[in-house]
Amino acid sequence: MIAEVLATGDEIRSGALVDTNSAYISEKIEEIGIKITRHNCVGDDEDELTTILLELAERADIIIVTGGLGPTLDDLSREAAVRAAGVSLILDNKVLEKIKNFFVSRQKSMPDSNIRQAMFPQGAAILENPIGTAPGFSLRIGRGTFFFLPGVPAEMRKMLNEQVIPKIKQEVKDPYYYKTKTISTFGLGESALEDKLSDFPSLFPDIKLGFRASFPEVQIKLYQKNSNENALVKEQEKAITWIKEKLGHKIVSLTGQPMATVVGDLLIKQKATLAVAESCTGGLIANWLTDRPGSSEYFLLAAVTYANSAKQSVLGVEQKTLEQWGAAHEETAMAMAVGVKKLSGSTYAIATTGIAGPAGGSLEKPAGTVYIAFAGPQGTKARHYFFPFGKRQLNKKIFAAQALNLLRLELLKSI
Amino acid sequence: MIAEVLATGDEIRSGALVDTNSAYISEKIEEIGIKITRHNCVGDDEDELTTILLELAERADIIIVTGGLGPTLDDLSREAAVRAAGVSLILDNKVLEKIKNFFVSRQKSMPDSNIRQAMFPQGAAILENPIGTAPGFSLRIGRGTFFFLPGVPAEMRKMLNEQVIPKIKQEVKDPYYYKTKTISTFGLGESALEDKLSDFPSLFPDIKLGFRASFPEVQIKLYQKNSNENALVKEQEKAITWIKEKLGHKIVSLTGQPMATVVGDLLIKQKATLAVAESCTGGLIANWLTDRPGSSEYFLLAAVTYANSAKQSVLGVEQKTLEQWGAAHEETAMAMAVGVKKLSGSTYAIATTGIAGPAGGSLEKPAGTVYIAFAGPQGTKARHYFFPFGKRQLNKKIFAAQALNLLRLELLKSI
Repeated sequence: MIAEVLATGDEIRSGALVDTNSAYISEKIEEIGIKITRHNCVGDDEDELTTILLELAERADIIIVTGGLGPTLDDLSREAAVRAAGVSLILDNKVLEKIKNFFVSRQKSMPDSNIRQAMFPQGAAILENPIGTAPGFSLRIGRGTFFFLPGVPAEMRKMLNEQVIPKIKQEVKDPYYYKTKTISTFGLGESALEDKLSDFPSLFPDIKLGFRASFPEVQIKLYQKNSNENALVKEQEKAITWIKEKLGHKIVSLTGQPMATVVGDLLIKQKATLAVAESCTGGLIANWLTDRPGSSEYFLLAAVTYANSAKQSVLGVEQKTLEQWGAAHEETAMAMAVGVKKLSGSTYAIATTGIAGPAGGSLEKPAGTVYIAFAGPQGTKARHYFFPFGKRQLNKKIFAAQALNLLRLELLKSI
Repeated sequence: MIAEVLATGDEIRSGALVDTNSAYISEKIEEIGIKITRHNCVGDDEDELTTILLELAERADIIIVTGGLGPTLDDLSREAAVRAAGVSLILDNKVLEKIKNFFVSRQKSMPDSNIRQAMFPQGAAILENPIGTAPGFSLRIGRGTFFFLPGVPAEMRKMLNEQVIPKIKQEVKDPYYYKTKTISTFGLGESALEDKLSDFPSLFPDIKLGFRASFPEVQIKLYQKNSNENALVKEQEKAITWIKEKLGHKIVSLTGQPMATVVGDLLIKQKATLAVAESCTGGLIANWLTDRPGSSEYFLLAAVTYANSAKQSVLGVEQKTLEQWGAAHEETAMAMAVGVKKLSGSTYAIATTGIAGPAGGSLEKPAGTVYIAFAGPQGTKARHYFFPFGKRQLNKKIFAAQALNLLRLELLKSI
């Protein structure tokens, strides 16, 4: 079984747009146990498109094509498909009606150019597009079954998952159940995780293990297939228990959630609230926390006190603390955490202060140094870390994640 | 002249990693006037790699290959290249010495596996890697000149720009000068920009125009080539003057800088300082502002007052303002801006309050509504906007950019 993807469009071919569709499709197809052999991309050129469709028709069994189904003249996937298949384009009146209704519901009249979106190669099976005007279609050319999908990621993803994947499973008469599990971790790199889990392949030969860096977190992925759904679930439970033993609190979430979401869940569970005092992370912790819908339930305040004067006037950090220890120090971090906790009346507080770089470092405290403090009902503590990434934005990210991780570990203690 | 790119590696083939290298390479190659015809990707499989190299050797003149040059057994680009070219691998002692020194300088000894990185196909020209252990090489196979580069983006980019692009220009005996210009804009979508600039192609037929969305900003790209460097520069100046007339203050930066950097430059020029009060943007404005190195020169404080109690205790927003107008209102936004300005002693302040969604909206103030205030030496003003994006993270971004844009326009007035 040879499967390939083909992305079309001049924006992707010329590099104006990064192709994220091919990665998404490959991952979803591999999840049902079919290996993607190649990715291909050509631009909006009917000859080029027809040529590559004919090549694919000779060498692949399943081909997912994205893009070129819009109403404009540079949308050429339909035309290339009929040329490659040696058939004609036929108007589908039902689809035309739907497209017209789509415009009526938006109180507009359909431009003539959209008629093209209701035309399909003879013999094609229509793939409905529930969230856009461009329907897709599947078509047999040579040895290949082609699935033509729109290039808009949201439309493509919905149609792939709801229509294409089930059709492929039918096509290959696939007797297997599939399950993918994503586990988020923090604190170990990909190779360190691989080392810790090196016995996994021999203990769980039926589960394929993958690692994906999503800096500064790393996701572990488990890919499984089994003809017995029950056995699959049991095997996964055993594997997760084993991974939990090996990694402990390095595991952030067994459902692949990012750190800030997990921290939010823990705060809600404890009916606790949080305030943040940020210096070198510059608002990134607050930004991550508030990306979670419903974060207003627990997140009260972040004071991004970049200037020393703001550390004093807003957080009440004393002049003598700053003079004695400097802005980047455990004592200052603790004073910031205590200050923002008092100011907001929150249950917990975290604070960051350090040197994100590139400037501002010294031999003793080089760029990459961060001081993180935690304040809670039981008291206050601070830690310092050095990270060798050497880039301002990477430093901000690792500092912010480290601070949220300190909070997460404290919240886990108080469960 | 047919040019193609080939990305190799199982992470990309299987979708675990999005391929950003191919877009980068295509853009750089198109900037010197050579059209990229296709992208290709195969995994770490010697047979697959050899097959596609032979296909490329038949149909393309220039091929950029990324990945597969590392020291491990799944790095197979060298082996596939010698098979496709029908030559042998030869050890280069100079390169071996350099790799050994690389490890010595890190006080480690070189693992045996790294010897492979000093082996090159007979007849290859070595491409030095100034920032990693994997050198690349160029090699003629069939009609094609192949450039093999590492997959690590930073290494690939440096080697492409410093070694490969000059070689290609030599190879094609290219008599042209090339220039790319990036202009950042805010406030108009891609198609609205295209409309405004619709006369451009007839007025400046020698300049190719491109648009790239970098939400919520849109970049305009000018691609030029000319055998006369002077004429090229003059033509670009004329084009930019014309674009400035058409777009006015929708232009954020003539050098492609993002909004937060431009705002920082304006503040430094005016020796002014800034404080921010954020509610619905949740720290994103502060995070963008502090991504700019040296932002501590002008950025004093952001108060991310998510809770109403924090708006009162930190910013001094009065209870009766919140009761009379609600948290999402121009009056509240102005009180926040005035409060944070006073608290920090800054020259300017901006404030945001609104509904990022998905919850918290009403018929009157649906999710996507934002109130933005500005406070400066001349006084205070506020505006409100509604954006129909319907997604929390997109709303946060467009709210934050709109607030920074209001500040930018005020700063431009006071120049």
